[in-house]
Amino acid sequence: MRIKSEDGTKEMRAVWFEDGIVKLIDQRQLPANFEIFEAKTTEEVAYAIKEMVVRGAPAIGITAAYGMAQASLQGRNVDEAFEILRNTRPTAHDLFYALRSMMDAINSGEDPVKKAEEYANDIIGRCEKIGEYGEKLIKDGYRILTHCNAGALAVGDWGTATAPIRKAHRNGKKIFVWVDETRPRLQGARLTAWEMVQEGIEHAIIADNAAGYFMRKGEIDMVIVGADRITSNGDVANKIGTYEKAVVAKENGIPFYVAAPISTFDFSLENGDQIPIEERREEEVLFCRECRIAPQESHARNPAFDVTPAKYITGIITEKGVFKPEEIWKLKS
Amino acid sequence: MRIKSEDGTKEMRAVWFEDGIVKLIDQRQLPANFEIFEAKTTEEVAYAIKEMVVRGAPAIGITAAYGMAQASLQGRNVDEAFEILRNTRPTAHDLFYALRSMMDAINSGEDPVKKAEEYANDIIGRCEKIGEYGEKLIKDGYRILTHCNAGALAVGDWGTATAPIRKAHRNGKKIFVWVDETRPRLQGARLTAWEMVQEGIEHAIIADNAAGYFMRKGEIDMVIVGADRITSNGDVANKIGTYEKAVVAKENGIPFYVAAPISTFDFSLENGDQIPIEERREEEVLFCRECRIAPQESHARNPAFDVTPAKYITGIITEKGVFKPEEIWKLKS
Repeated sequence: MRIKSEDGTKEMRAVWFEDGIVKLIDQRQLPANFEIFEAKTTEEVAYAIKEMVVRGAPAIGITAAYGMAQASLQGRNVDEAFEILRNTRPTAHDLFYALRSMMDAINSGEDPVKKAEEYANDIIGRCEKIGEYGEKLIKDGYRILTHCNAGALAVGDWGTATAPIRKAHRNGKKIFVWVDETRPRLQGARLTAWEMVQEGIEHAIIADNAAGYFMRKGEIDMVIVGADRITSNGDVANKIGTYEKAVVAKENGIPFYVAAPISTFDFSLENGDQIPIEERREEEVLFCRECRIAPQESHARNPAFDVTPAKYITGIITEKGVFKPEEIWKLKS
Repeated sequence: MRIKSEDGTKEMRAVWFEDGIVKLIDQRQLPANFEIFEAKTTEEVAYAIKEMVVRGAPAIGITAAYGMAQASLQGRNVDEAFEILRNTRPTAHDLFYALRSMMDAINSGEDPVKKAEEYANDIIGRCEKIGEYGEKLIKDGYRILTHCNAGALAVGDWGTATAPIRKAHRNGKKIFVWVDETRPRLQGARLTAWEMVQEGIEHAIIADNAAGYFMRKGEIDMVIVGADRITSNGDVANKIGTYEKAVVAKENGIPFYVAAPISTFDFSLENGDQIPIEERREEEVLFCRECRIAPQESHARNPAFDVTPAKYITGIITEKGVFKPEEIWKLKS
């Protein structure tokens, strides 16, 4: 992804492997500070995933792949590393996909670092293809709503939902992006807006509550979001609030697209109600950054994801093309 | 309303007139600090409304009525006071209703303080009636979602949306309240949760994004919200996000009620698209309390209200009973 710096714009990924260390842009610190987090052990890689130094299903997968390569290089028991990394976050399918790919490679004697790099390049290449297919759906002048951060930070580069947006912008289409702030963790206001600034794409941040208002006023032409897991019937688990946006988009006749590489598909599940939904700690709601916003006596509930049934989804943009939810079974290999 | 203090529970209003001063619970400071704001001039009363020391359509009306009484007592030009107070906030209908009632009274030689007290008692009495009618809709065990704060703080006492909730609780029904945090100003997390704590009602705060999740899971039995203005056809302007909740509630077969006194009805408007929607400053979105959450280069859009079309509304709970949106013309006097 392009990142603005004092010496101009440079190209960089959100996660990479260097000198035996898993290095990550620390997404908890953005947009105020740009810092690199260095994970030198499996436990530190697990911490980075669990505490959301890195987040976004594909980027979690890449981080886990590098974590397995690191464990293998360090002569660590890879079964144990697998377990430690698997028990970080429950919803994203890419995490299991990456860990299993790495285990298969290590068990068959492949070079684990080479395999992890291939895994990263493969995912990022797939996201660029998502950008090429998705870009065709974006007309000149489109105003596009996105929720959470399904951006380069969530993938490593390009992003899923933002790949078509980046491609449209780089191809000279005039576009405008509505950025849902995405409470409780504000990945939209903090991360997607930061990516739009880096890439020079015109955008405005809105409270999650305001998306329906702008849809009803005819100021949103399409919605593109990412996904954490997609089941055989085309149901999509994604950041909490995605379901509401999809229902209101349908009510207003606005196309609602999900962008995801095939690693996000879980054909072992029939429908979205079988996806485990992570409920995170209540402090994420009771505090906004460092400020407590609620009475001391009050509690909160904090589901991190919701399920959007296939019937609200216009199409799923993948590296193999754009599919209707009821057609994705064709992608099962 | 009941407020917990060191000497036990005491009864108090959100706004009152004492020694020529308009006194208000400073709602900007809740829930961290309980402070009384004293407005000694028309300008200070206007400041309290504009800067949201007080908010909520009926409480704004009561504050404006006291402001007019104060201006009259101080021998000030009441036409000028009327203009200053009118130009504070554009969406709430009660503000105009209160100012016009006070002007009529002053022009016909009535005692302005007595008139303002009557206005306040009348509105609060009407809200208690809303509580009595609305309570009948609440079954034992109900889990009720509310958005923003249409509580005692927004009215003076009882609340509009919270009046049925308070009545149900005081009548011994076991209820649970889902409190939308209500970005950007967090009136749910800060004020409604605070009222629930004071009244001892079981509740949980959720990110606005999570309401749809709990609706779809069958954990919400009904929705009750307030209103800032209701037009002849039953369209409702209320806090931004209300529209989304109403659409998703309808999609899930969950009854969606609006609670408001008749002072909130504007029969001069045919439908909700004629209601002016206040757009507030972008800093309310770019900051969460004192913390900036967005890149320095990013901007935000901040509509404070949205319009929920009548077709999403199950019923409107008033001091005269519960009406379907298409029946409210009967209330026109």
